[in-house]
Amino acid sequence: MTQFQSRTVALIGLGLISGSLALALRASSWNGTLTAWGPREASLKRGLELGVIDHYSLELSEVLAAADMVVVGAPPAATGEILKSVVGELSRLNRSPVVTDLASIKAHVIDSMASDYANFVPGHPIAGSEHSGVAFADSALFRGREVVLTPLPHTESNATEQVRAMWDLTGAYIRQMGVEEHDALLAASSHMPHIVAYALTRALERNAAEPMVHGGGALRDMTRIAGSDPLMWTDISVANQTALLTAIDGFQDEMIALRGLISSADAAALSDYFAICRAHRRAHDDILNPLPAGDSEEKL
Amino acid sequence: MTQFQSRTVALIGLGLISGSLALALRASSWNGTLTAWGPREASLKRGLELGVIDHYSLELSEVLAAADMVVVGAPPAATGEILKSVVGELSRLNRSPVVTDLASIKAHVIDSMASDYANFVPGHPIAGSEHSGVAFADSALFRGREVVLTPLPHTESNATEQVRAMWDLTGAYIRQMGVEEHDALLAASSHMPHIVAYALTRALERNAAEPMVHGGGALRDMTRIAGSDPLMWTDISVANQTALLTAIDGFQDEMIALRGLISSADAAALSDYFAICRAHRRAHDDILNPLPAGDSEEKL
Repeated sequence: MTQFQSRTVALIGLGLISGSLALALRASSWNGTLTAWGPREASLKRGLELGVIDHYSLELSEVLAAADMVVVGAPPAATGEILKSVVGELSRLNRSPVVTDLASIKAHVIDSMASDYANFVPGHPIAGSEHSGVAFADSALFRGREVVLTPLPHTESNATEQVRAMWDLTGAYIRQMGVEEHDALLAASSHMPHIVAYALTRALERNAAEPMVHGGGALRDMTRIAGSDPLMWTDISVANQTALLTAIDGFQDEMIALRGLISSADAAALSDYFAICRAHRRAHDDILNPLPAGDSEEKL
Repeated sequence: MTQFQSRTVALIGLGLISGSLALALRASSWNGTLTAWGPREASLKRGLELGVIDHYSLELSEVLAAADMVVVGAPPAATGEILKSVVGELSRLNRSPVVTDLASIKAHVIDSMASDYANFVPGHPIAGSEHSGVAFADSALFRGREVVLTPLPHTESNATEQVRAMWDLTGAYIRQMGVEEHDALLAASSHMPHIVAYALTRALERNAAEPMVHGGGALRDMTRIAGSDPLMWTDISVANQTALLTAIDGFQDEMIALRGLISSADAAALSDYFAICRAHRRAHDDILNPLPAGDSEEKL
């Protein structure tokens, strides 16, 4: 396996995900330097106080001048523009470190970036939380989770290898796929389920009987992600619109079919339907419920 | 607070919920006897081996002859018929212990029971698991959870007090409400969310890109309850059909509204919508995410 060779990793934007990457690198065998740039000094200061980063600057060029690996962590809608600034600045500095990002949508980011920088590797760690901000950063966030890389035709293979090597240190497993494939997959596996959680939560909010007050484990789980950042999910909904609408329609077909079976009280068909769902969920228990952090130390 | 006076509690049907009640009573200040009857000797034997019950019998009358409190734990569709047998047998034995049940639907159970037994208190602990069977019984299952009682016009108030006193010992909090109110509330807070989880899981199952393989925390939570027992959920879907269809339609209205906002890329409206959901979820965090068992010992 390729070794991670960067001595200085620069986080462009410091939040839950980039902060968790920093903590995971610190907890690993790697012992380089972590720097950060961001639009709000408060987050950077907090990151420094918490020991997530070693130093920061409010000057993008200062941070980029010293970095071997640049990780852009920003909302999907802003990531492309920031990447454009980063590669512009690197060109002025006459430097070409590896650059990657963390955005959950790839086509929109790559389109907005509008560059063929050969050391750019689009990335997306499939991990998160309903919380946001560097204060919630967690070194174990990526353990047993998936990181998808979508290298472009012009991406240097050595750059991809370096991004892989960095994520290997976090306990994540890494997959490569095409940009469109990634976006359709994420619409189905994450974006549409968030829309479902929001719709469910709003239906409960409109119910005068206050079902949330009487909620058990079902509501706990089915509404948790409706606590996610509204601006981030607005961005995602707009930036991945086409794939998201397709995934929503697939879900709605199932709701209509199930409503029909309940309406006609078709016990045999309902039981078959539910049994298929149970088998499908159980077949993925190992992926969806990875071992607690303490049990998977050996992965690091 | 009224003290729980029963010396012998009989569990009619031994599974996850009734077994958890038994373990919670054992872990409390109460030190009476737990007996059980059930249709399958294997479950009863398992319960005895695990120390959940003190003895069992395959003769219903033998168990009922000694009980001060009878708890019927069975699928919703079967609970009414079993209650009918229980009160018939008690009449033959010329006994009138307090009787309660655990079914998540009350109107259907009460209709099927067709009796005005004065010591019957319809009950429903709002707690559960995607697992079933006495082997998964957990003494902490009800801590911080809600138990709803729906006493009928003919129910003796002393019987209701005794059922309250029993559940108090488990760390649950107890609410009383009307039968119809309970069934509409449960359709919204539990039954419809299960249908949503099943529809989501089936949509993922039909997707050739296998989104479950790439699932993060969102899919973990949004599909967990689709691992629930297919027969139990078929029962519930049919037995609470009317209230469930109403709740599904309320959810579908929201899905259609949200799809419209995404389709028109209305960022301001999406952001408002998501913010309302986040606020509603956060306002119920304390109820939905009760303290871990170890932190709430004082409740017992």
